[in-house]
Parts: sequence; structure tokens; C-alpha cells
Amino acid sequence: MKHDRLSEVYCSVARTWSVIGERWTVLILREAFRGTTRFDTFQSRLGLGRTLLSDRLSVLVGEGIFERVRYQERPERYEYRLTGKGLDLYPVLLALMQWGDRYKVDEPPVTLVHEGCGEAARPRLACGNCAEPIGYFDLRAEYAPGAW
Amino acid sequence: MKHDRLSEVYCSVARTWSVIGERWTVLILREAFRGTTRFDTFQSRLGLGRTLLSDRLSVLVGEGIFERVRYQERPERYEYRLTGKGLDLYPVLLALMQWGDRYKVDEPPVTLVHEGCGEAARPRLACGNCAEPIGYFDLRAEYAPGAW
Repeated sequence: MKHDRLSEVYCSVARTWSVIGERWTVLILREAFRGTTRFDTFQSRLGLGRTLLSDRLSVLVGEGIFERVRYQERPERYEYRLTGKGLDLYPVLLALMQWGDRYKVDEPPVTLVHEGCGEAARPRLACGNCAEPIGYFDLRAEYAPGAW
Repeated sequence: MKHDRLSEVYCSVARTWSVIGERWTVLILREAFRGTTRFDTFQSRLGLGRTLLSDRLSVLVGEGIFERVRYQERPERYEYRLTGKGLDLYPVLLALMQWGDRYKVDEPPVTLVHEGCGEAARPRLACGNCAEPIGYFDLRAEYAPGAW
């Protein structure tokens, strides 16, 4: 199968991957969640070529993950802001971070504090129905007709 | 920056991405979480070339995400089983799926039923300390010295 075809199969993982699975895209999103909005900041933080960065940002704007907003008139300057759709990718970034915290570093480089309770959040998955903590072995997958 | 260098920066997202951010790797993991263990099944389900699939599986075995286990002696045949470290990638796959369910399909191809309560799980993030539902705007990131 060609990578392009992932956007067509009836699988939500594959379709999401077809959007964010390119090299650097997830790192660009990570920068955005860290507060970066400007092209030059993305570039200097990630050390990417302008063409590659520009290509990736265009795809993300086209997908509605970033909104391109003018912040200066002369000369014209734009920044890239995460939309609601982009912000909804946060759980993906968080899950990548948590696995890395566990397996790829000695000490986590980032601590997430829950503003509500004031403690380290250590986010975990809970059932949206009964609120109990859940993991892979607590779930049974039911496939719709035609699921890939 | 070179993609290879992602494994060196002090960032858990980047380091995880350096392991699973190659094309197809996440789709291979998706197959594994669906129950696929055999090379030929991965190959036929994903439609990948044998060399590419073999390369990706080798990396995942080398990382300790899959364990290569012999299931037949003559001829020798091996299967690829997710280890604990591999199973801990489930939240990454789940987050990709949930975003795709919301933005990339009309009807979710997979429903996850929580065996504990018998209802659709609709997994969400909760604080590991106070158990309240949390999202990006509820969290404050504190960076350790040297964080990338």
C-alpha cells in the first residue's frame, strides 16, 4: 500500500497518521503546544530548512490544525495558531511524552501540574462513562462493517 | 537538525518519535494491538514489502517493543508479540484513533466497550492525583534544567 492511501482506508488511526505521520510534523505540533507561533521560532527551535517547515505548516493549515493569522502589516507577518482541531491533538502529544518519560529518559524533562488540584497531574486514561481508570486490557473493540 | 538526533535531545516526545515516527511503524503497532502477531499477516494486512516490514519489525524488537517468539520448529517460524513496553504505547494509538474518530470519519469504525461497566468507554484523560477530567488548558508545564 502507498502511504497516501492511508487517508482513504476506514481506520481512524491510519487517517490521523496520514495527516501527522510525516517526519517533523509531530515536533512542529510539540513546539506549538509549547507556545511557539512564529515561523522563525519554529525554524530556529527545530533547526529545519525553510522549505520543509513551510511545506509542513501549509499541510497543517490546509487541514485546519493551524490557523494562519497576520500579526504585523508592514512588512506582512503571519503566525500559526493551533485551532480547536489542533488543540484536540494534545492527547497524542501527551501520550508520546508519557511513554518517553517512562522509557527514554532518566528524569522527565517536563512536569505537568494540574492547576485544579495543584499537584503533578500524571494524566491517565479513565472511562468516559463510569470514570474508572482504564487500559488496553479493560477494553473490547467492536468493529463496524467495513472497518479496515 | 537530523531526524537521528531526535533520540539525543532532552525531550520525551522527540525521543519517542525517534522510535515510532518512521512511516508504517504506527500502523504496524495498530495491527499488533488488533491481535496480529505473524509476519505474513502484518504483510498482507498492511500491503507492505517484506524488506520494509522486516526492517521496521527489527527496530521494534531491538527497542524491546516486540518480542520475537518461535511458535513452530520445522520450519522455524517466529511471531512478534507486544511486550509490556510495547503495550504501554496503547495510549498513543488510542489518542490517534480518537482524533480520527472526531475529524476524519463520519462514523467511528471501532467502538471500545469498557468491560468493567459494559458501556462504550469513550476514554478521556483524568488527573492521576485528584481523578478530575483534564485537558491541555488545565495543565501547567514546568521544565527541568536542560529540557529541549
